[in-house]
Amino acid sequence: MSTIANSIELATNAAGRVVPTNVNGKPQRAYAGVNHDHPQGRKAAPPIRTAADYPMSGDKRVADLETALRQCGLSDGMTISTHHHLRDGDRVALWALQTAAKMGTRDLMWFPSASFPAHAPVIELMEAGNVHHIEGSMNGPLGDYCTQGRMRGLGVLRSHGGRWQAIQDGEVHIDIAVIAAPTADAFGNANGSHGPSACGSLGFALADSMYADRVIVVTDNLVEFPCVPWQIQGNNVDYVVQVDSIGDPAKIVSGTTQITRSPDRLLIAQYVAQFVRDAGIMRPGFSFQAGAGGIALAFVDYLRRFMRQGGVRARFVRGGSTRYLVDLLKEGLTDYILDGQTFDLDAVQSIASDPRHIPTSPFTSYNYHGKGFFNSLVDVVVLGATEVDVNFNANVVTHSDGRLLHGIGGWQNCLFAGCTVLAVPSFRDRIPVIVDQVTTLTGPGELIDVVATERGIAINPRRKDLLDAAKGSSLPIRPIHDIQREVEKICGGKPQKPRLTEKPVAVVKWVDGTVLDTVWKVRS
Amino acid sequence: MSTIANSIELATNAAGRVVPTNVNGKPQRAYAGVNHDHPQGRKAAPPIRTAADYPMSGDKRVADLETALRQCGLSDGMTISTHHHLRDGDRVALWALQTAAKMGTRDLMWFPSASFPAHAPVIELMEAGNVHHIEGSMNGPLGDYCTQGRMRGLGVLRSHGGRWQAIQDGEVHIDIAVIAAPTADAFGNANGSHGPSACGSLGFALADSMYADRVIVVTDNLVEFPCVPWQIQGNNVDYVVQVDSIGDPAKIVSGTTQITRSPDRLLIAQYVAQFVRDAGIMRPGFSFQAGAGGIALAFVDYLRRFMRQGGVRARFVRGGSTRYLVDLLKEGLTDYILDGQTFDLDAVQSIASDPRHIPTSPFTSYNYHGKGFFNSLVDVVVLGATEVDVNFNANVVTHSDGRLLHGIGGWQNCLFAGCTVLAVPSFRDRIPVIVDQVTTLTGPGELIDVVATERGIAINPRRKDLLDAAKGSSLPIRPIHDIQREVEKICGGKPQKPRLTEKPVAVVKWVDGTVLDTVWKVRS
Repeated sequence: MSTIANSIELATNAAGRVVPTNVNGKPQRAYAGVNHDHPQGRKAAPPIRTAADYPMSGDKRVADLETALRQCGLSDGMTISTHHHLRDGDRVALWALQTAAKMGTRDLMWFPSASFPAHAPVIELMEAGNVHHIEGSMNGPLGDYCTQGRMRGLGVLRSHGGRWQAIQDGEVHIDIAVIAAPTADAFGNANGSHGPSACGSLGFALADSMYADRVIVVTDNLVEFPCVPWQIQGNNVDYVVQVDSIGDPAKIVSGTTQITRSPDRLLIAQYVAQFVRDAGIMRPGFSFQAGAGGIALAFVDYLRRFMRQGGVRARFVRGGSTRYLVDLLKEGLTDYILDGQTFDLDAVQSIASDPRHIPTSPFTSYNYHGKGFFNSLVDVVVLGATEVDVNFNANVVTHSDGRLLHGIGGWQNCLFAGCTVLAVPSFRDRIPVIVDQVTTLTGPGELIDVVATERGIAINPRRKDLLDAAKGSSLPIRPIHDIQREVEKICGGKPQKPRLTEKPVAVVKWVDGTVLDTVWKVRS
Repeated sequence: MSTIANSIELATNAAGRVVPTNVNGKPQRAYAGVNHDHPQGRKAAPPIRTAADYPMSGDKRVADLETALRQCGLSDGMTISTHHHLRDGDRVALWALQTAAKMGTRDLMWFPSASFPAHAPVIELMEAGNVHHIEGSMNGPLGDYCTQGRMRGLGVLRSHGGRWQAIQDGEVHIDIAVIAAPTADAFGNANGSHGPSACGSLGFALADSMYADRVIVVTDNLVEFPCVPWQIQGNNVDYVVQVDSIGDPAKIVSGTTQITRSPDRLLIAQYVAQFVRDAGIMRPGFSFQAGAGGIALAFVDYLRRFMRQGGVRARFVRGGSTRYLVDLLKEGLTDYILDGQTFDLDAVQSIASDPRHIPTSPFTSYNYHGKGFFNSLVDVVVLGATEVDVNFNANVVTHSDGRLLHGIGGWQNCLFAGCTVLAVPSFRDRIPVIVDQVTTLTGPGELIDVVATERGIAINPRRKDLLDAAKGSSLPIRPIHDIQREVEKICGGKPQKPRLTEKPVAVVKWVDGTVLDTVWKVRS
């Protein structure tokens, strides 16, 4: 162990990474390897409530968010949680924090399931002292702010499953959860699949509703009891606040999830689809997950053609759902969509109306501290990365310059699929993606099976079964070092080392709550 | 406080009832009045598990129930829970207990959500020492066994909501939950709405699955992952056991839920329906709950005619669902059925296929230690009783001779509806139903609003609003004492006092976990 200037004690974990032993005043367990850390103890236990303290009429509405926060006992140093299903269209999270600030509250911990550029004004609240720090994915400006070392506490990056684990295990105690709900009744039952601000599943808010001391539902579409379906159960909700609008529908569902037009990226997608077919993963009853990025969507499109040609039907596909998955469902090429979040209008309409399009939660799909989780049953998952090293370790949170610009999402949790494919261009802005060592370790190489680039496909030598399975294929299967060398020639060498200080600004948690790596302040 | 021969300390509670201060080794809170007891502390916290201990393939099947019980660490003195959705057709509960007995286990506490005559062989297991005692509704032979004072521990009777409350609050710790599942996958996701042994909702098993240390799903209809819907979540399940049959379908859904043919009982049903109409409860968007008994079904049938005549549509109806409720749904006379348990084949088919027919759980509908519960939003509920006294206190568990023959079911929880109607014949077997004081207090009179008999309707004087509302009606509205006097004349006087000893054999819990009354050993 070593201690650095600002007296954060550091240790080297099982991945050889230097990580703090204490984060925001809480002792940490260092990453011990995949499946090595064994949890102790019992789950978090919320206070017992009594119906005697709630209106027997079931009407939990209060005048406004300020009243709700006051009645929840808002005070300095509390943790306020929000969800990100409204994405960059969300108005509620910022509104809750700004209201708390207006009430004079200080040193709040904001615990979003993710943050977006729309939440950039939280920087002002941090500068003014109302918000102490953020634990949660910080996309864009907030991540940048964090890497500049300007946040008072350490950022804590967790996967979607890791966020559930942290709440469930009591590592993060939520004082007040503020849940933006596209539809709700006065009792607090809520869903995201209906209403003018419909966003699909509300799964990321489920743990908050179950474990927070107090829960506020904010809705712009109040319906008569019962609000059906009730993905958020009113029995966990304290107050309901009715507002004109919870967000900007145009930014909630982007409507712009589009297949890449880049020839290189289309080639990657095609390689991956062909690999899934040729390695025998695409067989009757198989399953896959692909995100909403341009390559992933193109992959789905290619795979659909192969499925049609082969007469192969999937048992289920996991989303991030888009119209490409909805088309598979409608065409009978999959029995079910198991939906983690819903990205476009077609998917929102589908989840609202098709019983085969099923909302899930991080509990069912991702939580590593449960009795198993769905994503280990997925046959193949296609993911992205900012960097991957020659041992197949990967990074999704920082760029090669060390700046924190992305959240983990479900990425870590998906690595437990039967076959994990990183579909990445071999370089971006003339910076090679395959590196000697990743800037920030987000996923251990032993869980990453295939790296697919436009210059060839590298199969992890640990997966002899996949190497064998792909032998007869016409695909350009190559050792990862070969691809690396070729790309370095094109780019004029290895990427520059990032200019980092010795000051930790955030940590990356592994799915079991241990600390996998540190994000360091960037030298200015 | 007083102490009786067998050294159980007694106290008098707020209802004036003498109750034990300690039950089966656990200190008790005495009933303090409706909405008077304020809970302390935090909910039960199950152990944190890790996916590392479960097969990543998701296949949790083991060879047989004995293997599953052994791997769950079955040992003497443990609590085993089961659910009663298979009713008198259930084979799994008895099988689990008999398997445990065969394995030599002793002193088990059986914690069913209810027991039926099919479970009478548990008496042999109690006699042999394998089962110590039962906490849960004991219908028929087991109740009789208990009232004879032959069980080693005290019976504890809880409402469906009270059972959830007891598990959630940690008053009952379940070591192993054994869940009979009409459909399940190898991961443990399960539902009751599909398969050859379909029983509808599995809501009574939900708390068990969430809070038990170990959970075994037993199914005779294994489907490929994902089992949809997953009312029981595989993420809470340890082992899956596949068997030929979990029960006798003919007894799971009785198929015999029939409207009463008794002219007196039809008259009661008609009075109640007319009261609901004339008192203005039957208005657009109203809601009601009625059980599956003969009078309740006839009430639904009459009310349906009034609803048609008045052009009135309900927002929701609560079941115990039967084809009478399904017909309302199909006819567009209600928007939703919120289903607690599913009684006949029409209802099972409906819940499996109609998204407006929604399974609920005791958490949503009944749990008094939540942030409210659905049943306080129901406008009118029609219930039965074995006895009701002149202060509107009622009994549903014992007969006038003191014998324990019925469980509480959701009865206590339903009392929180806007208007609670007891629809009862004025006498049974020449024994008056309206008494000076009930043998066993199950429901406080302040929550019971109307007693409807074939000889007239008594409205609780506390409900001046209902007295006013019913003023213009042609109904025979009479003081309860008048009806009592008339019936006593017919029956030749008041009922005989039951011949009871001073030995408690069971307690009746109130919805908040306090002890409402005691069931005493019957003098033999």
